[in-house]
Amino acid sequence: MRIDIITVLPELIESPFEASILKRAVDKGLVEVHMHNLRKYGLNKYNQVDDYQYGGGAGMVMMIEPIDNMISQLKSEREYDEVIYMTPDGETLNQGIANHLSTKGNLIILCGHYKGVDQRVRDLFITREISIGDYVLSGGELGAAVLCDAVIRLIPGVISDETSALTDSFQDDLLAPPVYTRPANYKGHEVPEILTSGNTPAIDQWREDQAYERTKKRRPDLLTDN
Amino acid sequence: MRIDIITVLPELIESPFEASILKRAVDKGLVEVHMHNLRKYGLNKYNQVDDYQYGGGAGMVMMIEPIDNMISQLKSEREYDEVIYMTPDGETLNQGIANHLSTKGNLIILCGHYKGVDQRVRDLFITREISIGDYVLSGGELGAAVLCDAVIRLIPGVISDETSALTDSFQDDLLAPPVYTRPANYKGHEVPEILTSGNTPAIDQWREDQAYERTKKRRPDLLTDN
Repeated sequence: MRIDIITVLPELIESPFEASILKRAVDKGLVEVHMHNLRKYGLNKYNQVDDYQYGGGAGMVMMIEPIDNMISQLKSEREYDEVIYMTPDGETLNQGIANHLSTKGNLIILCGHYKGVDQRVRDLFITREISIGDYVLSGGELGAAVLCDAVIRLIPGVISDETSALTDSFQDDLLAPPVYTRPANYKGHEVPEILTSGNTPAIDQWREDQAYERTKKRRPDLLTDN
Repeated sequence: MRIDIITVLPELIESPFEASILKRAVDKGLVEVHMHNLRKYGLNKYNQVDDYQYGGGAGMVMMIEPIDNMISQLKSEREYDEVIYMTPDGETLNQGIANHLSTKGNLIILCGHYKGVDQRVRDLFITREISIGDYVLSGGELGAAVLCDAVIRLIPGVISDETSALTDSFQDDLLAPPVYTRPANYKGHEVPEILTSGNTPAIDQWREDQAYERTKKRRPDLLTDN
């Protein structure tokens, strides 16, 4: 998989790709992530990438021409499966979308900033608009990092123990059950007896019950959506 | 506002706090963000912070003792309004929660990693559990960065033009209307005529209509939730 991220602030999301699982995935050659500073395609001697919005109002809008030039350059080099725009009014990211995107080859992710991009960018170049949740961020960069993390960790070989990802929350529409580790008694607070019983079938049943109970209490919507 | 972030991977989210709006907020003295490496409180000569889970199964669990010691140390220094745990089975972050948290004084944010934290940590120390969305990430760090960004940008004085935040998506349960900037005609694609009309009341009405139409089409749930 190859991901090209277009942003006016590449430095904002350098560190997530230089640590932990994303770095490991890159080091193993399982994914390539390329960060592109849109200012390279900025206009005039100021490398301008944004301007006031038509009709008046607060907040700057990212211009179409630098984005068009940047995307055209990338597309001239290879085929892309999706050109994704991170925006709060996009389709809300969920585990199903992450699973789906993890099977793709090449992705472009465009990070909005300021008031967002000129609508014509969305109409002409974007194939998919994704939001990471119902809240506004100062830019699309953190959303892009979140999307990359959610997707890249699902690529086979990225997480060392693959069964771990399969028992995560949402993979079966249930939240994960509670987990415990040593010590068995911490200042009088004990782990549930069943977990130290060695009775594997009973433990599996307990976990399933706990996952169901937790989901019913916290996220009944996950149970009724099917 | 002061935010203390507890993590096993502080380097993962260094860059978001050193760029853009978060950096500006810190530089202006409007917020203090302190990153704490949990390994400082790790056990034995390996600075151990995680262990196998009771009952068997893939994935490591973060131990209670280092977290207890870290949180106790912070609490001995000042009062905290909330001790937040980032977890996919928490309450789903939305703009209302971000608005609410932006009025708080001191927050602790605990980032889970691996299979999460020992359940006793959640039972004993956590006052609020927050998820940034229905997907699994490799750790709570990006979630913490997202939460901080969503909250900090709302603190008065952080965004230079405050009216800009008020017209964002979700602040009035409507998605934002389309925006356009120069040029008025880009390779034959024109901006809507109304936006260059100079008729401010008509432009406001158009934007309201567009916001409503977009919300009805993309997120009808936002209109029916009230």
